[in-house]
Amino acid sequence: MPVKKRKPLVIVYTGNGKGKTTAALGVLFRAFGRGWTIVMLSFIKSETSNYGEERAARKLGIEMIPLGAGFTWLSKDIEHDKALARRCWEACKEKIDSGRYDLVILDEMTYPLNYGWLDLNEVIEVLRHRPPNLHVIVTGRDAPQALVDFADLVTEMREIKHPFQQGIKAQPGIDF
Amino acid sequence: MPVKKRKPLVIVYTGNGKGKTTAALGVLFRAFGRGWTIVMLSFIKSETSNYGEERAARKLGIEMIPLGAGFTWLSKDIEHDKALARRCWEACKEKIDSGRYDLVILDEMTYPLNYGWLDLNEVIEVLRHRPPNLHVIVTGRDAPQALVDFADLVTEMREIKHPFQQGIKAQPGIDF
Repeated sequence: MPVKKRKPLVIVYTGNGKGKTTAALGVLFRAFGRGWTIVMLSFIKSETSNYGEERAARKLGIEMIPLGAGFTWLSKDIEHDKALARRCWEACKEKIDSGRYDLVILDEMTYPLNYGWLDLNEVIEVLRHRPPNLHVIVTGRDAPQALVDFADLVTEMREIKHPFQQGIKAQPGIDF
Repeated sequence: MPVKKRKPLVIVYTGNGKGKTTAALGVLFRAFGRGWTIVMLSFIKSETSNYGEERAARKLGIEMIPLGAGFTWLSKDIEHDKALARRCWEACKEKIDSGRYDLVILDEMTYPLNYGWLDLNEVIEVLRHRPPNLHVIVTGRDAPQALVDFADLVTEMREIKHPFQQGIKAQPGIDF
């Protein structure tokens, strides 16, 4: 098989193990080293969080957008949740379509997809017709099969051993 | 089970999929955001490489040490290779024992371990008696079982889909 030239990738990090968002941050780190323009949109983090990655991004001028504030995961009103998820996705779509980025990270986006709050077909069509040279990473458990089929690189992070099994909670610097 | 206080971890990222070194870089990024002192020692990269992560580390003043130069992976002289691996490990041990770091990354160290070039028991003893508060990450395929048993967090990166299957080669910013 002849080796093709470079090609912008859709990367999916999924599975029940730790390391999905973490690996996305690793690509972000390499991309930063290469001078790329990067944005990371997070479907779960709230606007008031101040995680290690957010602190680092601020220091380095990397755009990191927490979409989670107001994202009422426990709302009993499904229409309300759908409208919120839709608004978050519109923010992602705008970034993707803008043509301003080399790398867009859609962190934890599998959750609103799996809840049926976002239209998977629409998401895939937006990715398919994204600007040339744009790499996109999607993270989260249980990546939908159609997304796996569409993606170029898919790694499943499988939990072999989790610190919580020893009663150790999530820690700054390591987990967030 | 009561949740313990924070505990420095030994983390292993293993498996045949992409994302092992990448996840280690993600932890490094978070740790940088928290102001930690970090060193990454790489058993495979050569001293002349100039990967995205090396460029980023240089910009940020993070210590990243390629041990691979002179590491004659294809040498026919096993004693020669062992001596080289030993020298690389001594460099790692010195960093671990120094007490100067919050995070030490031993990138791709499973390879010299699996070749029998390093003494697994010695490595585990050094990790067991490391300075308090030091987190250590080991990456590479086929992590030895004793290391998995000793570690606090182990994720297997499983290859579901690899760009090379489509004939796409490794790319700057994404893979290195």
